[in-house]
Amino acid sequence: MYLQVIEGNYFTSADRESIYAGEDALICIDQGGKIARIVKKEASDFSEVRQAALIQSKLHQLSNDERLLPGFIDLHVHAPQWPQAGLALDKPLNDWLNTYTFPLEAKYKDVEFATPVYADLMQNLLANGTTTAMIFGTVYNDSNLELAKQAVSSGLRAFIGKVAMDNPDETPEYYRDFSAEQALEDTEIFIEKILAMQANSETTIFPVITPRFVPSCTDELLAGLGNLARRYDLPVQSHCSESDWEDQYVLDRFHKRDAEVLDYFGLLTDKSVMAHGTQLSNSDLDLFKNRQTAVAHCPISNAYFGNAVFPTNVALANGNKVGMGSDISGGYSPSIYKNMQQSVMASQMLTDGVDRRQAENVRGAGNSRISMKTAFYLATRGGAEALHIPTGAIEVGYQADFQVVKLHSDYLTNDRDDEFEQLMYQTERADICQVIVGGKQVYQR
Amino acid sequence: MYLQVIEGNYFTSADRESIYAGEDALICIDQGGKIARIVKKEASDFSEVRQAALIQSKLHQLSNDERLLPGFIDLHVHAPQWPQAGLALDKPLNDWLNTYTFPLEAKYKDVEFATPVYADLMQNLLANGTTTAMIFGTVYNDSNLELAKQAVSSGLRAFIGKVAMDNPDETPEYYRDFSAEQALEDTEIFIEKILAMQANSETTIFPVITPRFVPSCTDELLAGLGNLARRYDLPVQSHCSESDWEDQYVLDRFHKRDAEVLDYFGLLTDKSVMAHGTQLSNSDLDLFKNRQTAVAHCPISNAYFGNAVFPTNVALANGNKVGMGSDISGGYSPSIYKNMQQSVMASQMLTDGVDRRQAENVRGAGNSRISMKTAFYLATRGGAEALHIPTGAIEVGYQADFQVVKLHSDYLTNDRDDEFEQLMYQTERADICQVIVGGKQVYQR
Ligand SMILES: [Zn+2]
Ligand SMILES: [Zn+2]
Repeated sequence: MYLQVIEGNYFTSADRESIYAGEDALICIDQGGKIARIVKKEASDFSEVRQAALIQSKLHQLSNDERLLPGFIDLHVHAPQWPQAGLALDKPLNDWLNTYTFPLEAKYKDVEFATPVYADLMQNLLANGTTTAMIFGTVYNDSNLELAKQAVSSGLRAFIGKVAMDNPDETPEYYRDFSAEQALEDTEIFIEKILAMQANSETTIFPVITPRFVPSCTDELLAGLGNLARRYDLPVQSHCSESDWEDQYVLDRFHKRDAEVLDYFGLLTDKSVMAHGTQLSNSDLDLFKNRQTAVAHCPISNAYFGNAVFPTNVALANGNKVGMGSDISGGYSPSIYKNMQQSVMASQMLTDGVDRRQAENVRGAGNSRISMKTAFYLATRGGAEALHIPTGAIEVGYQADFQVVKLHSDYLTNDRDDEFEQLMYQTERADICQVIVGGKQVYQR
Repeated sequence: MYLQVIEGNYFTSADRESIYAGEDALICIDQGGKIARIVKKEASDFSEVRQAALIQSKLHQLSNDERLLPGFIDLHVHAPQWPQAGLALDKPLNDWLNTYTFPLEAKYKDVEFATPVYADLMQNLLANGTTTAMIFGTVYNDSNLELAKQAVSSGLRAFIGKVAMDNPDETPEYYRDFSAEQALEDTEIFIEKILAMQANSETTIFPVITPRFVPSCTDELLAGLGNLARRYDLPVQSHCSESDWEDQYVLDRFHKRDAEVLDYFGLLTDKSVMAHGTQLSNSDLDLFKNRQTAVAHCPISNAYFGNAVFPTNVALANGNKVGMGSDISGGYSPSIYKNMQQSVMASQMLTDGVDRRQAENVRGAGNSRISMKTAFYLATRGGAEALHIPTGAIEVGYQADFQVVKLHSDYLTNDRDDEFEQLMYQTERADICQVIVGGKQVYQR
């Protein structure tokens, strides 16, 4: 007997350039929360499967204006920054960190401050159609564990890291790890506790090795975190080549590029996700490719802090792994829809250029445009591949991680491609009716 | 006796760089729908005014998490394109016009096709907080008049034009005016009918002279429309220097720049609103300034079709009039919030540049960043000044054109500036609770 059978129209990413539009299908979810079977209308046993589900009260019929989509994978979230989403975006990165972000993150020493914020963030991610997120916590393990608990109780799949940052030159005294040794010990404690939580529940949370970024870590810490990543065979998250400042800082300190330094310390692995990468050189992209390290493309945040547009087409053509991230709160929105929209617009602006005073033929980079289908690929399959988990697609064997979305317009043709485009451009939080993770409803509007 | 008294916190644009945050004020609306008085908490007769309104059941108290804002002015909307909002944005402008847009606009020959679309568009504009819009219809007067009727019955303030386009070289045979003479006659008929409707109702609709853009009009039509604009002393709307293609076309045909041609035909007046202007030269901006012609900045649409970012700071520093436009459906969203967000992001991308391969010091144009407060100015006062109507501000003497918006986050400080930023970045359609035009509720969620 199936856990649930969902009947209706759906969209899933087929590959980097195309989607598959399923019509009036039965998506059969097994007791383990995975897609066991997808029955097309024309299958000989369609009526039989449908009838069985109906009798057992397991049939969930989508209404005419509802569509089933894979839940989104948000590869880059700073959970403690949620209260300042949409604030201070007119500040340069340095001021933004020191005047706003670090003082805010320091408040999470108090778990009572953390609890309602983290609970609210989980609800907001789910409400926007995100079913899996890769998340930075703070340096404080008490609130990091609270974050993990909130993730478990919300139902969101969450990859969570204790932030490690010990470099006194680039972090404030009131908010840093006491020493590299302490940071490594705390990271290991965090890992062990999360692994213990995994053993006691269904596996929806995962520990992540999390150096904030090269500037905020000493060599000793970076080396130690690389060792932990290898020893535990765990994912790594950090930032790489986000801005001109970051690149120059790392060049000055190491006489190497940011990506090379991360690699030297063993932090570029096939389980690593590096945020932004707007300033990655072509040789950096080759290094990422060789290590099978993924980029979290954060198009909204990049407009403010990235100093350039991430060249998605170059990276994809090069064979790089790329997913999508909201970068709350460098990005103001938890909505992956808004980030997909921005990724398409930014790619167009990279193609055409921005400064009218330059001649048309030198103004832009040319050929950089991505389609909304490519953006959808990044937000679903791309993210899932970066995390090595079977989600982000409506196909047999994948997790039943879904969002049910209401169509916005009354003027649609019967063209499923047009319907897809309008869904991607018009969906807001209020149009997301239901969110399902592992076959279980975790959010309903 | 007041029509209504609204009690609560509000925001209004003070000038191009700053806002005014009103606290616990009484906004008193007179029987004509204008703001008669704003009573501050500390005024000696605050309690008296409040009590009188309460007794007469005229007091509308905002709840703790609601804020009053001026309704937005959308300076550029193509009403017939509403059904394709979010579609075909991966096409170049020419293909977008000929394969999608012109065939769609041609359907409005049938008023029965037009009626539900126009009714739905009005509701969507209001639901997104827009209280005034400047709108292109089609070439067909029957559906243009239907558009005017729908505007009146919805309550939206609407500046509406019959689109004039007669150039056989740049318009399809199935969708153009039969001749310049016919287009001018139809324009005049449309004007007269709207003026007659004005006489029979409160003035919430206004006729606008509307050459589609220079390429789609013959010289005779452009000259005739310039004459009508002068003779009737009416607003003009068109497009100017939207793209490299448009600029080059006009240069080839007239050996003059787009702005110069419009000016030659008498179409740049202090009541003219020209959409996009991404390719305007500094001397074009001077010409606009001398004529007191406004630019409708359409940041979402410009990302797709503008071939550059409109240099808002340059224009404002030059003394140009600038407002905000959604450009439905060159822009995918009727939300002025989303356009404000995009205007800030685009200005940042113009500042920093987009192509990582260029050196930091030559990558961007520098100093082009606008704040969200400037974006808010464009969306309210800037638009109102372009249209010469007293709206877009919460001040005595202005129209009571408002939106009531719910705050999104639970983690706000008591800093009103922060509150304003979060409102501008986080508000979606579902957060807009009520819309008021001329003191009357025209939308409630
Ligand atoms: Zn980040
Ligand atoms: Zn337009």
